[in-house]
Amino acid sequence: MRAFPPGRAPVDEAGERDWLRLARSARVGPVAFAELMRRYPTARSALDALPGLAARGGGKRPVQLADEGAVAREYDAAQAAGARMLALGGDAYPSNLAQVEASPPFLWCLGDAAVVRPEAVAIVGARNASALGMRFTDTLARGLGAKGFAIVSGLARGIDAAAHKAALETGTVAVLAGGVDSMWPPQNADLYDMIREKGAILSERPMGYNGRARDFPRRNRLVSGLARGIVVAEGAERSGSLITARFAGEQGRDVMAVPGSPLDPRAGGCNLLIREGATLVRHAGDVMEALSPLEARGRAREPEDETWEPAVEEDDARMRATLLDLLGPHPTPVDEIVRRSGASPGFVSLVLLELELAGRLHREAGGGVALVEAG
Amino acid sequence: MRAFPPGRAPVDEAGERDWLRLARSARVGPVAFAELMRRYPTARSALDALPGLAARGGGKRPVQLADEGAVAREYDAAQAAGARMLALGGDAYPSNLAQVEASPPFLWCLGDAAVVRPEAVAIVGARNASALGMRFTDTLARGLGAKGFAIVSGLARGIDAAAHKAALETGTVAVLAGGVDSMWPPQNADLYDMIREKGAILSERPMGYNGRARDFPRRNRLVSGLARGIVVAEGAERSGSLITARFAGEQGRDVMAVPGSPLDPRAGGCNLLIREGATLVRHAGDVMEALSPLEARGRAREPEDETWEPAVEEDDARMRATLLDLLGPHPTPVDEIVRRSGASPGFVSLVLLELELAGRLHREAGGGVALVEAG
Repeated sequence: MRAFPPGRAPVDEAGERDWLRLARSARVGPVAFAELMRRYPTARSALDALPGLAARGGGKRPVQLADEGAVAREYDAAQAAGARMLALGGDAYPSNLAQVEASPPFLWCLGDAAVVRPEAVAIVGARNASALGMRFTDTLARGLGAKGFAIVSGLARGIDAAAHKAALETGTVAVLAGGVDSMWPPQNADLYDMIREKGAILSERPMGYNGRARDFPRRNRLVSGLARGIVVAEGAERSGSLITARFAGEQGRDVMAVPGSPLDPRAGGCNLLIREGATLVRHAGDVMEALSPLEARGRAREPEDETWEPAVEEDDARMRATLLDLLGPHPTPVDEIVRRSGASPGFVSLVLLELELAGRLHREAGGGVALVEAG
Repeated sequence: MRAFPPGRAPVDEAGERDWLRLARSARVGPVAFAELMRRYPTARSALDALPGLAARGGGKRPVQLADEGAVAREYDAAQAAGARMLALGGDAYPSNLAQVEASPPFLWCLGDAAVVRPEAVAIVGARNASALGMRFTDTLARGLGAKGFAIVSGLARGIDAAAHKAALETGTVAVLAGGVDSMWPPQNADLYDMIREKGAILSERPMGYNGRARDFPRRNRLVSGLARGIVVAEGAERSGSLITARFAGEQGRDVMAVPGSPLDPRAGGCNLLIREGATLVRHAGDVMEALSPLEARGRAREPEDETWEPAVEEDDARMRATLLDLLGPHPTPVDEIVRRSGASPGFVSLVLLELELAGRLHREAGGGVALVEAG
């Protein structure tokens, strides 16, 4: 994802309300949000420009901005709950997460945002964890906490809960699939309270929203995105933890796994990950060793000092037609479209943004773009 | 190790007795044995040449040939026990073992030598194995047996015994640290009888010799040398199995290990091996997959079609002095001596052989040679 210029993040309540409304508007995904903030100095000016951009993209119906009343209710609920907005581009936004593809425009944060630090490791695993797995997770999380690492997890039963609990005093971050005020599961109510007290609870979802199973993958990508590496402490061969680990690898995160007997199905996913190249973890030292090179990689991925495009560019109807011809129902990397069209990257991303806001373009995980089939 | 020409292995009892006597003679290690058999058509002619070679190497005392009576007693004991000699270069000699460095000149074999086949996997591990480890070993050995692989191990308690037992019907090879007739440990007496009945028992040690702890490393190198790959089923971080696995890697064998919980000390060695690059094994399929590329490597290591050196070569006193100058108390690779001296490989190996027989040269594992310190 292309970064936007510094100084765009909101600095007051009005700015935060605009930021929230832009992020909650239809068709404004994380990539479109960032593209808009490259081109407009404030969320307010982007909101104003949205209808025109969508029309230029050929949208059949006027673009739907998020309902002002619903946005106001969400913002007020956050205030009432004591949740703070961590806006992309702002100082409090987690720096690890800012480096992944499609970083969320903001997160709601309950608790202490300072706990969300770059020295963070995710520990995830089975809900129906074994006593051995829970015990190992406890030892590992304590060991990493003692070395200054925050522990990130998903507040699920089993491994997640054991990891959070062990890291309460040294720093732990729970990422929820629902809103930060929508605690789940009920068994972890006390833990939720303790994390809100001593750690941080994060979510990109609306206040009051109850997460469902289909929200887990997005949540899991935040868990790994917030961390420098992810440890799967226990997990079967077909488990959510395994999928989480694979996405984490695509995010450039170090993937680690705790081995177990092949006769124990709960170790199946971990053993498979290790066979696929994940680092075998025996103790906190192995995790620290695996993380060292990632720091260098992280730095390499920081945005270069680039020239920010102006909001309005010379239009070119023929080049628009060329770009449309290069798009199809199958995802194409944006880089390839730039190369094959000969257009400037700025112009290509503007046209793609307009098409997306018009509901005609879909962005795939991995950075490819595809036309939405008419139907 | 350089191979010797075909047709050297003994074909009758007299030949076998000479072969045994040459192998049991002082200073005739596996490399010297093979060098001798490159230069002399029979063990008898090599025995005859031995005193002269040692004298040319500067031996202070006349070379000690193995005592004829002791050799006769060993051979007769083997006959009485029903042991067969598998001589290096002969058809019955295990082809995997012929490819390693310093292959033993022969093995005594009790039972069915045909069980000793190239499709073989070694399974080793802790004597004080866990119930889980024993169960896994049983399943693994049965799985590999069903795929046609012979299981090689060391007849120890624990993992070794479980591996042999599971493979009795499909083919198992026990390698002893003592003579083939010196069963150890007593707990495995029944298993020993069953393997002699249905499988094969091998040793390079004299009949009647009781193996000791210091004989285990050599035995373990035979275990891995007989197999295409070695699986450590269970083993602590400082265990013999771990050392065995590392030597196996140096032999060019695929090293595999069965993972376990980091909280289980008996899995410590296996987890460490996996971190060091050993293949993580969950079932027989993983072993088969790991072995496939080794076959190709094995072929590549077969001796090339080379010109066999004549037994007598042009002597060159000045070159002998040069070679002595290149040798020292620290091991030097033979290749390097050839390169730096400019002498023919055949002449270099002759001089090294003479020095070894004279008691002035020591061969290190890995192929280096060093002068024995005068003292």
